[in-house]
Amino acid sequence: MKKAIVLLSGGLDSATTLFYAKSRGYKVHALAFDYGQRHNKEIRQAVRIARAARCDCKIVKIGLPWKGSALLDKKIRLPQNRNNIPPGIPVTYVPARNIIFLSFAASYAEAIKARAIFIGANAIDYSGYPDCRPRFYAAYQEALKQGLKTGVEGAPVRIYTPLIRKTKAQIIRLGVRLKVPYELTWSCYKGAAKPCGACDSCVLRAKGFAQAGLTDPLFIH
Amino acid sequence: MKKAIVLLSGGLDSATTLFYAKSRGYKVHALAFDYGQRHNKEIRQAVRIARAARCDCKIVKIGLPWKGSALLDKKIRLPQNRNNIPPGIPVTYVPARNIIFLSFAASYAEAIKARAIFIGANAIDYSGYPDCRPRFYAAYQEALKQGLKTGVEGAPVRIYTPLIRKTKAQIIRLGVRLKVPYELTWSCYKGAAKPCGACDSCVLRAKGFAQAGLTDPLFIH
Repeated sequence: MKKAIVLLSGGLDSATTLFYAKSRGYKVHALAFDYGQRHNKEIRQAVRIARAARCDCKIVKIGLPWKGSALLDKKIRLPQNRNNIPPGIPVTYVPARNIIFLSFAASYAEAIKARAIFIGANAIDYSGYPDCRPRFYAAYQEALKQGLKTGVEGAPVRIYTPLIRKTKAQIIRLGVRLKVPYELTWSCYKGAAKPCGACDSCVLRAKGFAQAGLTDPLFIH
Repeated sequence: MKKAIVLLSGGLDSATTLFYAKSRGYKVHALAFDYGQRHNKEIRQAVRIARAARCDCKIVKIGLPWKGSALLDKKIRLPQNRNNIPPGIPVTYVPARNIIFLSFAASYAEAIKARAIFIGANAIDYSGYPDCRPRFYAAYQEALKQGLKTGVEGAPVRIYTPLIRKTKAQIIRLGVRLKVPYELTWSCYKGAAKPCGACDSCVLRAKGFAQAGLTDPLFIH
């Protein structure tokens, strides 16, 4: 059975990506990161989602000795934009986050002889992070081809971004078809007991459920 | 003063690179990694080298939950080739090692507003690792341009590989001019009290000193 590494944050997009990879016949190895994020409850949810999908889930702990992001530094106020996410890259941008995550995924893939990495990056209903855009993934793919043993040997690890051009509503409709347990997913950057409803991540999630004509199960339970 | 991140392993090449970056007028921030390497004494040496250069040195601890390399897994025997390093990628290859290191360097650079990363990669007197070749660095540079905030904003973090096309003897001659304290550097993969003299790293080092017509200070003290 072909193996895939799925980067799993515990949020809606990565959970959908995990179930999508399973539906494509992959044996999924989930990979989550404890990188000092203020909403670290997402890690616990990632473990639950992986368990629901009957997948192995590894957690890599990264002790970043620097900050530079509102997700790492509680002294920086989280934007509470409600319905109007302004253009540009917000203060929640974590320097090189997906670059770091993918580098671990590439290492894991080679170590267990997987040839696929799935990541739930999205460049439609997103916060403007540059490492979510297709042109970044094309460039990173080339770096893996040139820098990995498997790349030099002609069987490179490939990165798949199945959600990258979908709206949040399309992602949710896909996930519902795949029976993703959305009640287990966590999106809110605040990481309190209940979603704040006002951070960019909450706003994008609410917009997705509304446009899909569905109720977010987080607000049913 | 312009800032640079220098990836510092504690070995000969990275120490030379650090002193080179200093000689080019950079305020150097050294970055070392504790990634489970069997020769983890190199980390202590990295700290000493940084201290000798009067640079800050941060250590990132990476708990890799997988192995896949003779440097991580003591069950895999280290090649003891003495003078004949065979062609191909050896078992000491660590999957995605420089890809991981550079991803942290990129994050650190953005967090402290540095625009330069120096790495002592070498593609002449080396072990055949694919992530030491110029074409990998060109591809990775493009990934940083597309994936980092600074890249999108038009002032990308740049990767410098000043040693990449030098022989080990040329590197050592450069380092002697720059007053690199080679007695503090550590190359041997075994990480015992004294260098083993037979692993690829020892072999390359010995060849360099011999061709430069110099005595390795590790064998004087």
